[in-house]
Amino acid sequence: MSIVLIIEEVDDMIAGIIGATGYAGVELVRLLSGHPEIKGLALASVSYEGDRIEHIYPNLLGKVSASLTKVETVIAASDVVFASLPHGVGEPYAQACMDKGIPFIDLSADFRFGDDEATFSAWYGKPYQYPGLRRQSVYGLPELNRSRIKALAASGPVIIGNPGCYPTGASLGAFPALAKGLVGPGLIIVDAASGVTGGGREPARAFHYPECADSVSPYKVGSHRHTPEIIRNYQAMLKVEQPEGPQLIFTPHLAPMNRGILSTIYLPLVDTWQAAVPRSPAPRPPAREIEEKTREIWECYTEFYQDEPFVRVLPLGSIAATSRVRQSNFCDLSVHLDQSGRTLIVASAIDNMVKGAAGQAVQNMNIISGFDETAGLTAIPASF
Amino acid sequence: MSIVLIIEEVDDMIAGIIGATGYAGVELVRLLSGHPEIKGLALASVSYEGDRIEHIYPNLLGKVSASLTKVETVIAASDVVFASLPHGVGEPYAQACMDKGIPFIDLSADFRFGDDEATFSAWYGKPYQYPGLRRQSVYGLPELNRSRIKALAASGPVIIGNPGCYPTGASLGAFPALAKGLVGPGLIIVDAASGVTGGGREPARAFHYPECADSVSPYKVGSHRHTPEIIRNYQAMLKVEQPEGPQLIFTPHLAPMNRGILSTIYLPLVDTWQAAVPRSPAPRPPAREIEEKTREIWECYTEFYQDEPFVRVLPLGSIAATSRVRQSNFCDLSVHLDQSGRTLIVASAIDNMVKGAAGQAVQNMNIISGFDETAGLTAIPASF
Amino acid sequence: MSIVLIIEEVDDMIAGIIGATGYAGVELVRLLSGHPEIKGLALASVSYEGDRIEHIYPNLLGKVSASLTKVETVIAASDVVFASLPHGVGEPYAQACMDKGIPFIDLSADFRFGDDEATFSAWYGKPYQYPGLRRQSVYGLPELNRSRIKALAASGPVIIGNPGCYPTGASLGAFPALAKGLVGPGLIIVDAASGVTGGGREPARAFHYPECADSVSPYKVGSHRHTPEIIRNYQAMLKVEQPEGPQLIFTPHLAPMNRGILSTIYLPLVDTWQAAVPRSPAPRPPAREIEEKTREIWECYTEFYQDEPFVRVLPLGSIAATSRVRQSNFCDLSVHLDQSGRTLIVASAIDNMVKGAAGQAVQNMNIISGFDETAGLTAIPASF
Amino acid sequence: MSIVLIIEEVDDMIAGIIGATGYAGVELVRLLSGHPEIKGLALASVSYEGDRIEHIYPNLLGKVSASLTKVETVIAASDVVFASLPHGVGEPYAQACMDKGIPFIDLSADFRFGDDEATFSAWYGKPYQYPGLRRQSVYGLPELNRSRIKALAASGPVIIGNPGCYPTGASLGAFPALAKGLVGPGLIIVDAASGVTGGGREPARAFHYPECADSVSPYKVGSHRHTPEIIRNYQAMLKVEQPEGPQLIFTPHLAPMNRGILSTIYLPLVDTWQAAVPRSPAPRPPAREIEEKTREIWECYTEFYQDEPFVRVLPLGSIAATSRVRQSNFCDLSVHLDQSGRTLIVASAIDNMVKGAAGQAVQNMNIISGFDETAGLTAIPASF
Repeated sequence: MSIVLIIEEVDDMIAGIIGATGYAGVELVRLLSGHPEIKGLALASVSYEGDRIEHIYPNLLGKVSASLTKVETVIAASDVVFASLPHGVGEPYAQACMDKGIPFIDLSADFRFGDDEATFSAWYGKPYQYPGLRRQSVYGLPELNRSRIKALAASGPVIIGNPGCYPTGASLGAFPALAKGLVGPGLIIVDAASGVTGGGREPARAFHYPECADSVSPYKVGSHRHTPEIIRNYQAMLKVEQPEGPQLIFTPHLAPMNRGILSTIYLPLVDTWQAAVPRSPAPRPPAREIEEKTREIWECYTEFYQDEPFVRVLPLGSIAATSRVRQSNFCDLSVHLDQSGRTLIVASAIDNMVKGAAGQAVQNMNIISGFDETAGLTAIPASF
Repeated sequence: MSIVLIIEEVDDMIAGIIGATGYAGVELVRLLSGHPEIKGLALASVSYEGDRIEHIYPNLLGKVSASLTKVETVIAASDVVFASLPHGVGEPYAQACMDKGIPFIDLSADFRFGDDEATFSAWYGKPYQYPGLRRQSVYGLPELNRSRIKALAASGPVIIGNPGCYPTGASLGAFPALAKGLVGPGLIIVDAASGVTGGGREPARAFHYPECADSVSPYKVGSHRHTPEIIRNYQAMLKVEQPEGPQLIFTPHLAPMNRGILSTIYLPLVDTWQAAVPRSPAPRPPAREIEEKTREIWECYTEFYQDEPFVRVLPLGSIAATSRVRQSNFCDLSVHLDQSGRTLIVASAIDNMVKGAAGQAVQNMNIISGFDETAGLTAIPASF
Repeated sequence: MSIVLIIEEVDDMIAGIIGATGYAGVELVRLLSGHPEIKGLALASVSYEGDRIEHIYPNLLGKVSASLTKVETVIAASDVVFASLPHGVGEPYAQACMDKGIPFIDLSADFRFGDDEATFSAWYGKPYQYPGLRRQSVYGLPELNRSRIKALAASGPVIIGNPGCYPTGASLGAFPALAKGLVGPGLIIVDAASGVTGGGREPARAFHYPECADSVSPYKVGSHRHTPEIIRNYQAMLKVEQPEGPQLIFTPHLAPMNRGILSTIYLPLVDTWQAAVPRSPAPRPPAREIEEKTREIWECYTEFYQDEPFVRVLPLGSIAATSRVRQSNFCDLSVHLDQSGRTLIVASAIDNMVKGAAGQAVQNMNIISGFDETAGLTAIPASF
Repeated sequence: MSIVLIIEEVDDMIAGIIGATGYAGVELVRLLSGHPEIKGLALASVSYEGDRIEHIYPNLLGKVSASLTKVETVIAASDVVFASLPHGVGEPYAQACMDKGIPFIDLSADFRFGDDEATFSAWYGKPYQYPGLRRQSVYGLPELNRSRIKALAASGPVIIGNPGCYPTGASLGAFPALAKGLVGPGLIIVDAASGVTGGGREPARAFHYPECADSVSPYKVGSHRHTPEIIRNYQAMLKVEQPEGPQLIFTPHLAPMNRGILSTIYLPLVDTWQAAVPRSPAPRPPAREIEEKTREIWECYTEFYQDEPFVRVLPLGSIAATSRVRQSNFCDLSVHLDQSGRTLIVASAIDNMVKGAAGQAVQNMNIISGFDETAGLTAIPASF
């Protein structure tokens, strides 16, 4: 027996969620309800105003009980506000939070491009409504921007542009190689498969069970809006300068599963990082040199992420799978080398609704609030 | 800001798991790793002795790290022991725990039948090895036996016979009707569908993906071993005496999902609880009387479970679904009346690996250890 | 080498399909396109008039090419018309076909109840529009009504009320027991699980992939519209008279698969057909008597269906599974006895879109047209 | 009414299948049972000799009835022999067929590499047993080798090396671009996802339902044995000479579906086939030039395959999906251009068990036997 004395600041912190009945919104409800620093939730929904969240999502019964109210009410009641809204809708709410002096964590694309309005409007088809807000906003990928996020938060209320789901998995899988100078000029390909929750809660033919069950298919080939976000992140990490910038092809696929994004990332290696496999017109099975060089690259990845709480570089021989990160904020990475020794292949697995959306948003809240970065995100992924 | 002073007993309680690499075993690992009162795990595995649990289940990487050792080592190191073993194997370990004076929570059928060795051996094809152990054992369905479990635990080290997965869902769905005298003589039918994890971790043709995906099929029709356990539980709760005891048919099905058991339970109502629907040879749509009587029965269910932390009687109009309890210790119940008003239909949903196995085992540990009964079991079921 | 001389009537028969873009409609397109006696299709669609069927269903590319036109055009061009429309919409088209003197095969409920308008309007909420049409209509379950269908067709143009999907599986599973006097008084329970195509092509929340994947749940408990159709069929086959008629509870479930209905049917046996298992309050494993009696009942089923081309009574020891009948017109049945020997349990598997809808409609066309009853329905179900 | 006189050669052709109880074997059983020119099947199985195929696969009941016998008996009884065996086992049977003077269609890799024994033994770890057999063998990808197959068959009994599943989809997707000079130097990437039947019928942990359901994961990254087969096919079609030959990375993934392979193929375009998109460091949405050039390439693909019965180049705007080719011998292709205009992206969908295995084997039999190439392969893919 012993005595433990704890002195803690009790903030009675209230988190507001705008768009609480969408899939990312309700995932925020789930994560924040179990968050040790959050004492209450205030929920807004345009579609279901006046209803209760546990009626719409009966899985919450007995655990969460809250009525859905107006956005204004939520902002007034909250110490931090999350918004999970369509692109181009949330800026007035961000402004209201700034006016009130509380942080605004936005899961749409509105604040992902900072002052590069040109790229945003080219891909999302609308201009910024309140361009000035970008002075207070930062792109919320902690593994890229943690110090900038902290610095900005220290200076006043901050807007977080929470990353897209695909860009999260694609960026984390490539960052060490880019940052440590492994990647040479040439094309980077990200070929990714997402679970169906990525399409949101609203029924649509593409996500109708009989249409997508038992089938795999690409979509928006060569034209998905997450492309510029991935390129921008790659550029930011790129050590070896490339006149044209990193060249990227990104191809999303729909796979018959609920959650998860598996990204297979092809990165051209600079000469010095290639395995010294003798060139030959005839294909041969992978050589011993491949194994050695793979280990070097794996060490490089392991070192890069050694202090990151949510990125797991899998042991050599293990391969990333979406099932292993289900319902967790982890990003699992496995590193592989093509048999020619010239291309690095990284498999990256995230839960699209957690590290790809709500979990990362909570991680950002933790960072800007001075909480333990893993608070509320400690769930162990289940084995099945 | 405020100061909170907490004085707590720090026991550094160690939980041992025998059979840690099976599906129920690793689910125990997951739940106990997040349990606030458990300070460490000791894991035993015959098949993987010397290996590490996080190599076999890479989803645990970074969260759980433990080598798999011998059973004896585990018992020696632990303050409570869980066993997830085939039927008829664990009795010596139970004896060892009793000798050491620590509780033994058994997920096999070995201790589910108490001193009714005849039923056990008739259905499981082997006699008790250490019959005397049943003096220290109790059937661990808290909603039936909570006070007996507590009483026995107060008197010394206890053995918990953790219930079967199907009996858990089937029992909780029928208990209020049985206990409050709603059920009259006649046949009770439990028609249930289980996810494939119910078949365990070992590959077998019946659970090979292409064999069970996109298909539903019954199995062990009229002969499943969980039948006598369900009947015994029904008998224990039955208020209206029946000379032959409750008559039961139990039909399990395999459904293409990972987790979950949905039991549809048909209970013949005594006259006084039937809806007064005029009898007629021609079928008619459900009458208003049905709605009224359903509400009465629902109130009866709601009242019965009002203090139970893990049973949710769904609001009228809502129907139990396995997805709503996924990864939680909840049992969801919805009550319905047949259009003739004479049969109560209850839909019961549990996660077969949580309330149907590992979660219930943790609940039992909480009860016998004097912990909050929900400790380690507070996860909110996800919405998808 | 040999010479084969064939004399055949070449009718250049054209089949019209109204509602061709729904799931049952396009399944008709698929089956009729491969039908040896059908030389062409005429397709009508309100929603897609002017479009082409192979644009809406690209799986048809290169196999079927047809524009979608008006109902009137289709009726004018066709020698037989199939209608897959919502209930209560198709009567004028049936009248038009009668006027033209061609058969009308209706997949809605409009003609399933014959002159029992009271039952139809009680359950479907609308009266008959053209009540007189029922003089020319017949309920199209061949295993029940083959001779009546043939007789009516011989007398002039006929309207087929094609059975519902659940009633087909439920009826075929119970018919031999009912017809041969095995079933005594008491409650019959049909507990059935359907694939998601049963919900049709229009996106809806209940059929949105993330909502129904990895989950089983009942729906319309005690109130599904197929209830009166099943009871009526049972009554028609019942040998042992029962003052109240057969008592039925029917509970449908949604299961995460594309196609298939698995019905588990519980039938109370008359004394003489019960296994002579000694009654006892204690549950025991199934006795030898069970095995013997099961074989007798199996022989009864086998004999009943010996000439039916689409009902397979599985060998003893084999259990019906929806995967085994996928894309075929088969109904698979397995017979089992409860351990008490007093209740017959039949598992019945059909493909809800084939024997449960489009395939049975083609079977009916074959019967009324004098074709081989299996024409166009000879596909072997795939093994996976 | 008319009279049709048909004179046909009745050959009473018997097809033998060695390895009939594996997944590819039983798919051959299904396809050949419905083949208009095949009058009987002779089936061999080492594991199930003496048993009946319809007991092992009850889906065949009532449609196929055959006992499983010895390989020698099958060869003696057959006019053509299919073998679906592990690699390196079937050569003696091929020799026996050559001795008897009947064709041998081999679904293993043994005859895919012709006289390039070096590549075969490097990747499959064993030498040829009867090297001389390759004089009579040909690689059976009809879209590549139809005339060679026909020519060799005309000269005597022939051995078909039936292509691998991944190489079939990957080759058909790239052939037009390679043959018509669209592809320039640089890396070709094939990123493919397969259904679980690709892993065969034997239960294994990787294909255990709870392990692979609801998850996507790559496997054998950089080292899959189908790599040299794809490269060899690309080389054979390549018009623009490349000193090192085509450079390929092939990454297979496992996806939670029963059937199907979706290959996403990235092909570097030669300058003249690139879209004239102005180069820029900033990513932009796809330009109009992309659309125009895509149409040109699509026309090129359409023309290339205009006479192929089993390759469907989808209309512009439609994207290949595995569900659309389920249970058919089709390969669906959709062509896309990266937003930079420099890389052609082709999505290719096949059913891995049909065009990827058994269906293609039947197609080869049709070619060498002088049957209509589509005989037995005319099934319309279902819409769901």
